[in-house]
Amino acid sequence: MAEAQWVLMATGRSPTNIAVIKYWGKRDEALILPVNDSISVTLDPDHLSATTTVAASPSFPSDRMWLNGKEIELSGGRFQSCLREIRRRARDVEDKKKGIKIKKEDWEKLHVHIASYNNFPTAAGLASSAAGFACLVFTLGKLMNVNEDYGELSSIARQGSGSACRSIYGGFVKWCMGKNDDGSDSMAVQLVDESHWDDLVIIIAVVSSKQKETSSTSGMRDTVETSLLLQYRAQTVVPSRILKMEEAIKNRDFESFARLTCADSNQFHAVCLDTSPPIFYMNDTSHRIISLVEKWNHAEGTPQVAYTFDAGPNAVLIARNRKTAALLLQRLLYCFPPQDNDLESYMLGDKSILSDAGVQSVADVESLPAPPEMKTPGQKFKGDVSYFICSRPGAGPKVLTDESHALIDSATGLAKGV
Amino acid sequence: MAEAQWVLMATGRSPTNIAVIKYWGKRDEALILPVNDSISVTLDPDHLSATTTVAASPSFPSDRMWLNGKEIELSGGRFQSCLREIRRRARDVEDKKKGIKIKKEDWEKLHVHIASYNNFPTAAGLASSAAGFACLVFTLGKLMNVNEDYGELSSIARQGSGSACRSIYGGFVKWCMGKNDDGSDSMAVQLVDESHWDDLVIIIAVVSSKQKETSSTSGMRDTVETSLLLQYRAQTVVPSRILKMEEAIKNRDFESFARLTCADSNQFHAVCLDTSPPIFYMNDTSHRIISLVEKWNHAEGTPQVAYTFDAGPNAVLIARNRKTAALLLQRLLYCFPPQDNDLESYMLGDKSILSDAGVQSVADVESLPAPPEMKTPGQKFKGDVSYFICSRPGAGPKVLTDESHALIDSATGLAKGV
Repeated sequence: MAEAQWVLMATGRSPTNIAVIKYWGKRDEALILPVNDSISVTLDPDHLSATTTVAASPSFPSDRMWLNGKEIELSGGRFQSCLREIRRRARDVEDKKKGIKIKKEDWEKLHVHIASYNNFPTAAGLASSAAGFACLVFTLGKLMNVNEDYGELSSIARQGSGSACRSIYGGFVKWCMGKNDDGSDSMAVQLVDESHWDDLVIIIAVVSSKQKETSSTSGMRDTVETSLLLQYRAQTVVPSRILKMEEAIKNRDFESFARLTCADSNQFHAVCLDTSPPIFYMNDTSHRIISLVEKWNHAEGTPQVAYTFDAGPNAVLIARNRKTAALLLQRLLYCFPPQDNDLESYMLGDKSILSDAGVQSVADVESLPAPPEMKTPGQKFKGDVSYFICSRPGAGPKVLTDESHALIDSATGLAKGV
Repeated sequence: MAEAQWVLMATGRSPTNIAVIKYWGKRDEALILPVNDSISVTLDPDHLSATTTVAASPSFPSDRMWLNGKEIELSGGRFQSCLREIRRRARDVEDKKKGIKIKKEDWEKLHVHIASYNNFPTAAGLASSAAGFACLVFTLGKLMNVNEDYGELSSIARQGSGSACRSIYGGFVKWCMGKNDDGSDSMAVQLVDESHWDDLVIIIAVVSSKQKETSSTSGMRDTVETSLLLQYRAQTVVPSRILKMEEAIKNRDFESFARLTCADSNQFHAVCLDTSPPIFYMNDTSHRIISLVEKWNHAEGTPQVAYTFDAGPNAVLIARNRKTAALLLQRLLYCFPPQDNDLESYMLGDKSILSDAGVQSVADVESLPAPPEMKTPGQKFKGDVSYFICSRPGAGPKVLTDESHALIDSATGLAKGV
């Protein structure tokens, strides 16, 4: 059967996102329904994103998936939930050029191959599952011609990884926790797009860590079960913070934005510490970065930079503008000089921030003056930061139409280069 | 005037104490009134205590004080509060042998000299002010023949340093926050004396730290002003924990005691983290010690050891009995071997715990096997612990009648050896 040989493909790219009001704790484990609303900023997909190709063919005997070039098991309930929900919404597809005609009901029988990769180290702990599941759902939706209701797509991505629902949009995004038991109203909405507040510059410090970290899934389960502070946070503190954060974003009020972002990051880590056994995501390096930012903000009289930490020691630093970001970078490089005397691999993403900071070489780093607000200027911590990434608020998922971006070989139906 | 030459002295010794339900946050800064009750265990004064000599003489032109051999200013409001409150309660004193007769009203005019020293490093951050103020108040009370109402003495010591009120008793002690605006009902009571639960062994790991720590006075002020979780902790969580902790202590129920102690330590540090700017007292070494204890407790199925941390990185570890303490010490020495190859100065207090642990030399430490519950047995952190102190629950303040203990020279009225 000649028609059994066709392979239909779609490729998409989705950004990662960083919460500024944190999601921590589920009220329903299976459906991934949170105990509070959260708000995030989407990062520029040029710097931090997942790219995914999904392919369908009558010649595929089963569903298969490759992540960063390595085949992985698709048995996980979360992948299956996303696949099932998208298949349920699939519609007729016709590709006249290739002579392919798939009826709505045929999708139930067609198996898919999925290949995905992240343009940043997965091990860095930078919400790779958020970008990955958003991309999977978005791209499957394209392949299967699903109606473009982004709210519904976000609700499906949520079932893969909670925070993935926020990666369906660019700019600033709110995940509304919803009230329904079936989770149908637990979905993300865009607050403003990425052009609304484009002064912001985001510098991520990827912090070296010897500790094995608690997974966020088991960590938040333990917090829900044992922390006496979590419910108070979720029911009393967060609702008012969400309103204030929406106002701050709408008004581009950096001072309020920074205060809320830092306070909520710290409170998330506080409820982790209030868990039994306690969860520590931040380490001494994370503490030092907070201290550096707090001292500088205090010295300036008004916040220059906001910090936020997810389920790991990495610092995500949001500077009010490019000038501030350059001053921040000088401070960071002063305290955390590159270990390998190699600036090139120490600054990823938008490397042009280095010239804004007047730093072109390791010699320039070494001659940086101590920041005036620093009490003990001698202290340097070479090796404690693995590298920095410079980024900014970015756009939501998009289709990559150029076939060269496809991660699956249309002739074989398998991941390329495996 | 010959009678102007006499010097009347008293010397006392008071223990330090470690809270197992923490005091953090004042509702009245001047009177030192807390936002919640707290419970502590008094440590054996042989290992951790303050010794204070107070002297009065008509020849003293002003009040003076020496701390650890160095004269310090007595202008602080807290010293003055304690002095004033004790003077107010002073009664007639007669020493027929020395021919001294002091009338109640004379105490207002008599100046005092105070000399105090701690038998442990002040810099270690082990509640030296608790022992110090308790000792000052207790010993001044003796000198001035104040009525021995320990509740009232504790209330006076509280005005020197909040936690000092708990050092007025041995064993387990509760500081009742009280309700009155004038603080008259904010005082400590003994729950049980030190003989009630004498199986317990306390090992303190004094952790090396490069960071300058936030003082507890300014730290708790910041928490009261900025943490959204503190009031919930104080009003809702602690009252029920206090009741459970009293039960656990009464019944010598180590499992409940350990769970409550660890949870409350972690929650205290959680509200510190929820403060703006956030306060970090624990560092990576503190986290490693918690992790070591949690893994062992988990492996045993029931808690062997409780941990608690005050306003600093030092771990206070309470083992259910001596056998458990020996097993704990093996684990601690395995992970944190002595840096200077000198076991003698690495184990202070009750050094006999070393032989219980089968460790007599640095060679013995090096040949300790990895604890079976440890996942990554290679990891050792030489230098991260400065030294250990082994202690146990101990008795309250007492008078030292032997003149050789006096820290003031009765001939000169000045601190000895200055």
